[in-house]
Amino acid sequence: MSFIKRQSPGRIIALGFAMVILVGSLLLMLPCSIQDGVTVRYVDALYTSTSAVCVTGLIAIDAGTTFTPLGQFFLALLIQIGGLGVTAMGAGIMLAMGRKVNLKGRNIIREAMNLNSGRGLVSFVKDIFITTLVIELAGAVLSFTVFAGDYPPLKAAGISLFHSVAAFNNSGFDILGDFQNLIPYQSSVMLNLVTCGLIITGGIGFLVIRELLKERFRWRRLSMHTKVVLAVSGALIAAGTLLLKLTEDVTWLGAFFQSVSARTAGFSTYPLGKFTTPGLLVLIVLMFIGASPGSTGGGIKTSTFFVLLQGIKSAATNKTEKAFHYSVPRAAFKKAAVITLLAVSVVMTGTYFMTVMEPAVSLRDALFEVTSAFGTVGLSTGITPGLGTGSKLLSILIMYIGRIGPLTVASLWYFNRKERISYPEGNISIG
Amino acid sequence: MSFIKRQSPGRIIALGFAMVILVGSLLLMLPCSIQDGVTVRYVDALYTSTSAVCVTGLIAIDAGTTFTPLGQFFLALLIQIGGLGVTAMGAGIMLAMGRKVNLKGRNIIREAMNLNSGRGLVSFVKDIFITTLVIELAGAVLSFTVFAGDYPPLKAAGISLFHSVAAFNNSGFDILGDFQNLIPYQSSVMLNLVTCGLIITGGIGFLVIRELLKERFRWRRLSMHTKVVLAVSGALIAAGTLLLKLTEDVTWLGAFFQSVSARTAGFSTYPLGKFTTPGLLVLIVLMFIGASPGSTGGGIKTSTFFVLLQGIKSAATNKTEKAFHYSVPRAAFKKAAVITLLAVSVVMTGTYFMTVMEPAVSLRDALFEVTSAFGTVGLSTGITPGLGTGSKLLSILIMYIGRIGPLTVASLWYFNRKERISYPEGNISIG
Ligand SMILES: [K+]
Ligand SMILES: [K+]
Repeated sequence: MSFIKRQSPGRIIALGFAMVILVGSLLLMLPCSIQDGVTVRYVDALYTSTSAVCVTGLIAIDAGTTFTPLGQFFLALLIQIGGLGVTAMGAGIMLAMGRKVNLKGRNIIREAMNLNSGRGLVSFVKDIFITTLVIELAGAVLSFTVFAGDYPPLKAAGISLFHSVAAFNNSGFDILGDFQNLIPYQSSVMLNLVTCGLIITGGIGFLVIRELLKERFRWRRLSMHTKVVLAVSGALIAAGTLLLKLTEDVTWLGAFFQSVSARTAGFSTYPLGKFTTPGLLVLIVLMFIGASPGSTGGGIKTSTFFVLLQGIKSAATNKTEKAFHYSVPRAAFKKAAVITLLAVSVVMTGTYFMTVMEPAVSLRDALFEVTSAFGTVGLSTGITPGLGTGSKLLSILIMYIGRIGPLTVASLWYFNRKERISYPEGNISIG
Repeated sequence: MSFIKRQSPGRIIALGFAMVILVGSLLLMLPCSIQDGVTVRYVDALYTSTSAVCVTGLIAIDAGTTFTPLGQFFLALLIQIGGLGVTAMGAGIMLAMGRKVNLKGRNIIREAMNLNSGRGLVSFVKDIFITTLVIELAGAVLSFTVFAGDYPPLKAAGISLFHSVAAFNNSGFDILGDFQNLIPYQSSVMLNLVTCGLIITGGIGFLVIRELLKERFRWRRLSMHTKVVLAVSGALIAAGTLLLKLTEDVTWLGAFFQSVSARTAGFSTYPLGKFTTPGLLVLIVLMFIGASPGSTGGGIKTSTFFVLLQGIKSAATNKTEKAFHYSVPRAAFKKAAVITLLAVSVVMTGTYFMTVMEPAVSLRDALFEVTSAFGTVGLSTGITPGLGTGSKLLSILIMYIGRIGPLTVASLWYFNRKERISYPEGNISIG
């Protein structure tokens, strides 16, 4: 334990995720998790566990036809742990056990949640658990009204619960079987809207949800961070819907759903293998930007994207960076730029190795797959099940880096106790 | 004239390039420029003129079989004007006419050449002309020893001169005919090395050439800028050679040549259409980084790339940016990041529109073509002649933005006389 105590928060978080992934892969390999007559290779179990814990949703083996209800329960559990984050889970368990969280523990939670101060941490963690529970139950009830039409009640209840957990945590998994994802519910307005609602609430982050509830949705009272997250999320959803509708043969509902889902939920109501190249490029950009900080989603994050835009504008106009009557913290641009450059490097390097290992896969499909893994999105043009072991291990690594964050990964090596990475406290949270 | 005098240096440079491109397109449309029985559409003449003035070398119509010797002379002239830069040409003409360059003129030259101060401008411009002339003549003589073996003396002399001008200016044009580029000379060690020598000297920039000559190649005496340019150029050439040799069916000489040529010369001794996807990805990255500031090359530039790496390292280690016993200027990272982000945006947007207009072109080929246009490289997987008018106009725009620089283009709109874009003078030159 003393070895662990000496490590940086970043290292403990990274280690925690790795441990959960490993335990998860073993749980999914248990005979009672796997349906009779199905064999699962360890690399596929590891892939599925990583995909679940990193709330990615890339699927090498179909969850509906491979796993037993117990296996699917393990999967939902891994998604929930991954979505809440290993840290929040740990903190929650300690709180539930009545133990106090010490300063070191508070620092880890602060780092994992992108919080600027350590005040009110305990109540914050409590809020997270309650919010998650309430929203997921509501989502499950609403989904049940749709699934009950197609499945017997008990099965429909299971599917609804799994779906609600998967959607709120932006995980993109489904248990409908045969890699169908939500394509059978392409035109169900109810399921489309419920799913989008869960994805969006999960994707804007707990900080924003809490502030919205506290300030009762009054725009003027909101902090800069919340305004930025809401404005950028809205703009990206609208732009994505419009661009997808222009080039793809989908309904407006379908375009809206895919635009919402690409920023990091990863569900699909249309087979993406049939999308045009420009349509896939739009999805790639949305996947790369991703959700908001402190949420269950991945990518470089909406606030990072916003700070980049402001930095470019300020360089072109030679004016200081201002937005919503706040000025953008000076150090924010550098952090945002470094995160983005690292993200581009990870995606490019990953794509390079995938095209080396899979000569039959086109640049388009490889770039899409790797961006999806990095952004913990889970969309695919359909190449995942056919990938070789090397490419699957590569995807596992990229999902992991995407969930931990490339800057955290880069700083794992460099950490020493005297020089801790710390940026001036800003009123915007990045990456 | 008073309207022009009120404009920013950036606007005058942008306007100058546009004017030369337009005049060039008209010269190439003259009946005496075009061979008998060949018809040239205006969009192709405009494309060729842009490609020449922006020293890109993307070829929609074959220069060897389309243009007469006079047309080829016009082409070489456009390349030379583009290579020296419109500004240096203007300054040179004024000097030759015995007129003095006023403060406004000096500012424009300073901006165009990426110089930190306006001192010694006149002698600098003179040096540029003399260096260019000497190196190009030497290159032509050496090339002649190769071409004389295959062509009658007069024709060989013409080809040698054209080739030397094209190589030193990193333009990538050839007049061997039938889109062959330098493939017939794949195994001519002499021509490979002479061409690489011309490309590298042209690509490191006049500042570096002058300093190397002045300090007689003593490493310790060199400025930070020169050390950075030499180190990064060397590292990129070596890494590119190695990576290309690993995945492509080429000789070491071929891998070396393509690695040098990708950073922004644009000659090829192998048909790139047969390269593998990972090989093309390596070329795309090299094309994107490009040559060094104040040179005839394009891309985000070697020094920009270096500053990015230093910034990432400093963010991961929380140490200040140092290199070669100098510290990197503080404002450098922001400028480098903004240039890179704008470059990524231009390339992504260009690729998007090209895939919209050319459904038959793969993402790989479109990304390659657009990066090549942006980095004013001129390599192509072979799709250029088959592109529609819309895609050609798009390429023209991207070549132009690539040559002027995306940050200059972005600031064209915002300029007013009171707020001039200026960064603290650093000892490294970016973009
Ligand atoms: K996901
Ligand atoms: K070129």
